[in-house]
Amino acid sequence: MSEPKRLRVGMVGYAFMGAAHSHAWRTAPRFFDLPVVPELTAVAGRNPDGVRAAATKYGWDSVETDWRRLIERDDIDLIDICTPGNTHAEIAIAALEAGKHVLCEKPLANSVEEAEKMTAVAQAAAERGVLSMCGFSYRRTPALALAKRMVEEGRLGDIRHVRAQYLQDWLSDADAPLTWRLDKSKSGSGSLGDIGAHSIDAAQWITGSTITGVSALLETFVKERPVGGDFVGLGGRGGSDAPKGPVTVDDAALFTARFAGKHDDGAAAGTDSGAVAGPIGIFEATRFALGRKNAMRLELNGTKGSLAFDFEDMNSLQFYDSALEPDAGFRKIIVTEPSHPYTGNWWPTGHGLGYEHGFTHQVVDLVNAIGAGEQPSPSFADALQVQKVLAAVEASAGNASRWQNV
Amino acid sequence: MSEPKRLRVGMVGYAFMGAAHSHAWRTAPRFFDLPVVPELTAVAGRNPDGVRAAATKYGWDSVETDWRRLIERDDIDLIDICTPGNTHAEIAIAALEAGKHVLCEKPLANSVEEAEKMTAVAQAAAERGVLSMCGFSYRRTPALALAKRMVEEGRLGDIRHVRAQYLQDWLSDADAPLTWRLDKSKSGSGSLGDIGAHSIDAAQWITGSTITGVSALLETFVKERPVGGDFVGLGGRGGSDAPKGPVTVDDAALFTARFAGKHDDGAAAGTDSGAVAGPIGIFEATRFALGRKNAMRLELNGTKGSLAFDFEDMNSLQFYDSALEPDAGFRKIIVTEPSHPYTGNWWPTGHGLGYEHGFTHQVVDLVNAIGAGEQPSPSFADALQVQKVLAAVEASAGNASRWQNV
Amino acid sequence: MSEPKRLRVGMVGYAFMGAAHSHAWRTAPRFFDLPVVPELTAVAGRNPDGVRAAATKYGWDSVETDWRRLIERDDIDLIDICTPGNTHAEIAIAALEAGKHVLCEKPLANSVEEAEKMTAVAQAAAERGVLSMCGFSYRRTPALALAKRMVEEGRLGDIRHVRAQYLQDWLSDADAPLTWRLDKSKSGSGSLGDIGAHSIDAAQWITGSTITGVSALLETFVKERPVGGDFVGLGGRGGSDAPKGPVTVDDAALFTARFAGKHDDGAAAGTDSGAVAGPIGIFEATRFALGRKNAMRLELNGTKGSLAFDFEDMNSLQFYDSALEPDAGFRKIIVTEPSHPYTGNWWPTGHGLGYEHGFTHQVVDLVNAIGAGEQPSPSFADALQVQKVLAAVEASAGNASRWQNV
Amino acid sequence: MSEPKRLRVGMVGYAFMGAAHSHAWRTAPRFFDLPVVPELTAVAGRNPDGVRAAATKYGWDSVETDWRRLIERDDIDLIDICTPGNTHAEIAIAALEAGKHVLCEKPLANSVEEAEKMTAVAQAAAERGVLSMCGFSYRRTPALALAKRMVEEGRLGDIRHVRAQYLQDWLSDADAPLTWRLDKSKSGSGSLGDIGAHSIDAAQWITGSTITGVSALLETFVKERPVGGDFVGLGGRGGSDAPKGPVTVDDAALFTARFAGKHDDGAAAGTDSGAVAGPIGIFEATRFALGRKNAMRLELNGTKGSLAFDFEDMNSLQFYDSALEPDAGFRKIIVTEPSHPYTGNWWPTGHGLGYEHGFTHQVVDLVNAIGAGEQPSPSFADALQVQKVLAAVEASAGNASRWQNV
Repeated sequence: MSEPKRLRVGMVGYAFMGAAHSHAWRTAPRFFDLPVVPELTAVAGRNPDGVRAAATKYGWDSVETDWRRLIERDDIDLIDICTPGNTHAEIAIAALEAGKHVLCEKPLANSVEEAEKMTAVAQAAAERGVLSMCGFSYRRTPALALAKRMVEEGRLGDIRHVRAQYLQDWLSDADAPLTWRLDKSKSGSGSLGDIGAHSIDAAQWITGSTITGVSALLETFVKERPVGGDFVGLGGRGGSDAPKGPVTVDDAALFTARFAGKHDDGAAAGTDSGAVAGPIGIFEATRFALGRKNAMRLELNGTKGSLAFDFEDMNSLQFYDSALEPDAGFRKIIVTEPSHPYTGNWWPTGHGLGYEHGFTHQVVDLVNAIGAGEQPSPSFADALQVQKVLAAVEASAGNASRWQNV
Repeated sequence: MSEPKRLRVGMVGYAFMGAAHSHAWRTAPRFFDLPVVPELTAVAGRNPDGVRAAATKYGWDSVETDWRRLIERDDIDLIDICTPGNTHAEIAIAALEAGKHVLCEKPLANSVEEAEKMTAVAQAAAERGVLSMCGFSYRRTPALALAKRMVEEGRLGDIRHVRAQYLQDWLSDADAPLTWRLDKSKSGSGSLGDIGAHSIDAAQWITGSTITGVSALLETFVKERPVGGDFVGLGGRGGSDAPKGPVTVDDAALFTARFAGKHDDGAAAGTDSGAVAGPIGIFEATRFALGRKNAMRLELNGTKGSLAFDFEDMNSLQFYDSALEPDAGFRKIIVTEPSHPYTGNWWPTGHGLGYEHGFTHQVVDLVNAIGAGEQPSPSFADALQVQKVLAAVEASAGNASRWQNV
Repeated sequence: MSEPKRLRVGMVGYAFMGAAHSHAWRTAPRFFDLPVVPELTAVAGRNPDGVRAAATKYGWDSVETDWRRLIERDDIDLIDICTPGNTHAEIAIAALEAGKHVLCEKPLANSVEEAEKMTAVAQAAAERGVLSMCGFSYRRTPALALAKRMVEEGRLGDIRHVRAQYLQDWLSDADAPLTWRLDKSKSGSGSLGDIGAHSIDAAQWITGSTITGVSALLETFVKERPVGGDFVGLGGRGGSDAPKGPVTVDDAALFTARFAGKHDDGAAAGTDSGAVAGPIGIFEATRFALGRKNAMRLELNGTKGSLAFDFEDMNSLQFYDSALEPDAGFRKIIVTEPSHPYTGNWWPTGHGLGYEHGFTHQVVDLVNAIGAGEQPSPSFADALQVQKVLAAVEASAGNASRWQNV
Repeated sequence: MSEPKRLRVGMVGYAFMGAAHSHAWRTAPRFFDLPVVPELTAVAGRNPDGVRAAATKYGWDSVETDWRRLIERDDIDLIDICTPGNTHAEIAIAALEAGKHVLCEKPLANSVEEAEKMTAVAQAAAERGVLSMCGFSYRRTPALALAKRMVEEGRLGDIRHVRAQYLQDWLSDADAPLTWRLDKSKSGSGSLGDIGAHSIDAAQWITGSTITGVSALLETFVKERPVGGDFVGLGGRGGSDAPKGPVTVDDAALFTARFAGKHDDGAAAGTDSGAVAGPIGIFEATRFALGRKNAMRLELNGTKGSLAFDFEDMNSLQFYDSALEPDAGFRKIIVTEPSHPYTGNWWPTGHGLGYEHGFTHQVVDLVNAIGAGEQPSPSFADALQVQKVLAAVEASAGNASRWQNV
């Protein structure tokens, strides 16, 4: 028996996302048969002590204090980018041009311009067999993957309504500290890009359509926050007598949207007459909804059925099937069956999965694509489309909510 | 013991709303101590056979085939208007000018102009002791009345988010017939005025604030429907080979909103600096959300707590109180305690109420106000404010979703 | 048009149940087409002031201070018994022998002996066209009536499990006063007969089978309670320094059960070989489950599907249909469709009903049976079977939980 | 920096439980700071190919085809027993006597006699510093660990009711094959020991009390099943024409129970007067509840509050606190806060965990206990108590449900 092929990974960044990615690389081959076996070869971070501690903790074989060094190394096949959005473009482009596959956390970048450059480089790299993927990990939540499958099977008919909410509350306290996520120069935007981007990607992916225009309202409830506070997890508290600095991102993002329609043959349509109209959508993202901890919710209403999901009950998917009796209620599918996406590789029916499984499944899909030499999904082009929606939302909000084409 | 004072009611219209109002007039004095006792004196309708059958069925003492005759009668103290919106202004104004109290179904009218005239007449009548009320009966759902009380008590702190959905599905079938509710000349608007108006009124009433501006998107999914079909309840089906006529109202209404802020003393504010900013809101009304039967949902997030309601589980109210431990979850208050609004007059705790109780409570509040010689709530002025929001929504939707002040 | 036939009702007792029954008699003809029209002719109670006030409040035309007088009156067709269980036998037997139809609140009596006598009298009366019914009103909750229909249609296949809980909490406070419901001489038993009887009746009715044996555990958590306390609704509080008296009934009743099987042709079976075995059941009734206000829950698991109900969400029924995909989740049927039992006579889909509708539907079914000259359901014989189960539970609990045949 | 101490693990068995345990040993040190670092040293199984494949798949360094060899090896510190119950006693006793720590899957054994021997050996070994634990992993579900903490804090007051259900449906199909779990000689019992044992352990652990007596009913719905069928996961299907063999275990177990009371100082009591009475309990375990996939439910009602849990929504715990307003509803605590048991080491609030986390937490607690030289919990003595309850249930069921002291 020959030695299995290896995929030697170099990860940049080791905070919250780094922990999740490390777990995914380590766990994926234990539950899934993969064409190549990932190895946790090196992790990079600027702080020497920090990166060494992270390597020990998360099981990486070596460390670098400069991500450029990671790209130079011959023993690295893939660069996994887990840093804030303002650094994505430089790292990803350098990695792809050096022939490394790339997994880049979302949002792809902090601007459409950066995202377009990255996409162009990624498409050129793909022609040389160098592959790239953006980390919209929620696609790999089994319930959302099942939703995608059911829409593709036509169980909903033509979709009329998209209803997306992403509600958290960890910034509700006005004394929570000013972190990088509240600094536009690092994070690009606030709730919009941090969590709203997940809703946008999921909605476009599951409907198989793209958002063509939006009308938006952005709001910053707390204009200043304490600097230098103790930052624990996503939350923490800075103390009310700490000096304050300005919050430069949105606290909440609200928008309505239209999606592209499609032709009778199912192909996406523009504004052509004769095509089925696309869905209309309504989106909300906030980190000020007290009591909602991670309520990433998505509901779709079609001509034949409806689907509803809430990440706070992530192992289930609600389905209304109008093909049943007129009184068919929503049925709560517990998404842990062998027939469901991903779940057959885990535990018996009814034994739920958690948040990190999305990352493990993301690695599985990425490694399978690399093994097959095929484009992983979501591509940088898919992520660029999300970026364009984010930009349109900001443009509309800055122009009296006037309709903004994407 | 002297004879109790009587309130002799004349009702115009006897369809769905007429049945609900009849039940309310009949039932209110059986469960509540009222200062005056309602009597079901006369019902008016154009069809002689129909109105006679309705009188027998619902227990009215006499009939009229012209509502004008009802207003002329000396033995009528109050006119209860249960007809489509295009008739409200004429009937209500005539009644008030004839010295009859008025209960008028919502929406108050089909245009701001009509509503303004009605409000002016109502305010003049009030000075003569002739009172009027608009039938936003959802205010009398115990759970929403409890929400109002809790907001007034400061349990939510300053409200940041209003999240309102009113989802039904009875028009989802493209072959459902073209009824008066789909004819703009009769109904004024579609989902927007029929069900969205309830959300707007409830949101303004419970927050104690008013909507100051909106950005909106309206959509008509099914442009034509069969005429002359069999109309059963709200739904029915016309048959796909029936001749078709145009749907002239919205099937779905989506909008974002801003509410007025308030001064430190709690008084409502305009755009003054120094005042606490008002909430932002997001609204959706549709009759195309397959599987949602009467999901009138309202969620409020404040600086101290959150509330969530869904009419499909109408006997409960979800409350998140951040004054509890950090891990306080939403608690599901079963709104049937003796201490809750209205419920002490009904059954023991845990024995839920139904849809029609809102109408009975509406009668209770109206009769109590009349007995006390005080303005009932909601006044025509309150309903006019809702009408202005509806108009602003339509204006924005017709102007590329551009922000529209109310 | 001839005068409609009338059913002149005389009601005995006017507390909680009296209020519910009055509403039902008054409301039934307003929403349902009935073959005879009920009239609220007279109400009887020992306290002259109390009964007069009740008559005015609930709309009865006359009063009596002795129930015997009610039975003597020629202008009464039906006696409605709303008094405590220890008085049922005497009143019901006298009424039936006097040729009056009878509606008797549950439990039918406080002992099997009484119930047997009542049943014998009722069966003799039925041969003379004098009809009787026991008020297990929960059968008329639309969701439970739908459950019955679905079981009859074979949607569940052969039932294996019955899982019944009736959980309340209004006696949880050890200072709640000693009322007649805690006095065995008046109430017969505690949680067992008060609420457990509803579970037993519903389980037997819906499965179409009868309980053949039980093993039981009864418990009285609070042995003494204050006497003479203020009794408000079901709860109230006596004050901790009031003199105390003994609680002579069970606070909680727990039992397992076996149901009769059936033959291949669907007929009920005894212990014959060849027949399909009957379900096994587990029952719990308590008024000490803090936070559960009126959680009358019933779940059935069959070979083809499952049903689950909770009165705290009384307008819905959960259904699992194994004929769907293997991943069919429970679907929450909102039981307000025109096709559902009773609901087509009320409001549009999604507009829920309340507790008292069960009593209105009970009147509808009773009046329809009287109009047709047919035996209403549940008969006294049905109620006697429930009484036998209650007795078997007490016998087993008094005999070290040993199995007790019914 | 010195080399961290190691805990070299040898695992026996590598099926469903083996996969879960492997993941736990591998993952625990990545998210928790442990005093000693587990190593996946060797896995044992009789089938040479199977065990080699499992070692590769799950990451074990070496293999053995005889568990005795594992115990003989010097480089193994702990034996992890993941085999069927009939083998536990022999392996565990041999391991403990050889000075290896032991983690033994539940149920501890297939009889009280075996469990008593194991407990005696374990207690003797503990005096030599050799530690043992039984794998009731559900204790490590964060929501149940939080329930335990809340009970200990007195949030529920004195507990009156224990209500436990463990509902699955994977045997509902009469053609599901005859596996070792249906063979009494291997599994000891059916639903009772497989899943009911979890309910018993959780109930005793969380209440801090022990079951003193039971009355039980056992049932086998499907008496024969196809042999040699294809066994996939827990379910599978044998085909209706396969030869059949007898099912020798219970399909469903129902029982009522009494728990030990306690003295005023909180110490557990027997039947002494003066002590607070213990809770009464009702238990059900079945694998025939169609639609219930892994509904391990536990509800406790005390004098001050109530708790409710359902593993199908495993990241939440329902709490009713009577110290709040009288209308305090159950609040749904999302058990993902930093302050909750275990969860602070994982993801941000609202990002749920899955089934396997219980096993990881079990390893964490075991390794911490070993590091501290303290008895891990649950001990073999704790597991023996569960075994005694299982035996009492079987004894009562075999004796007409007569009360059986434990």
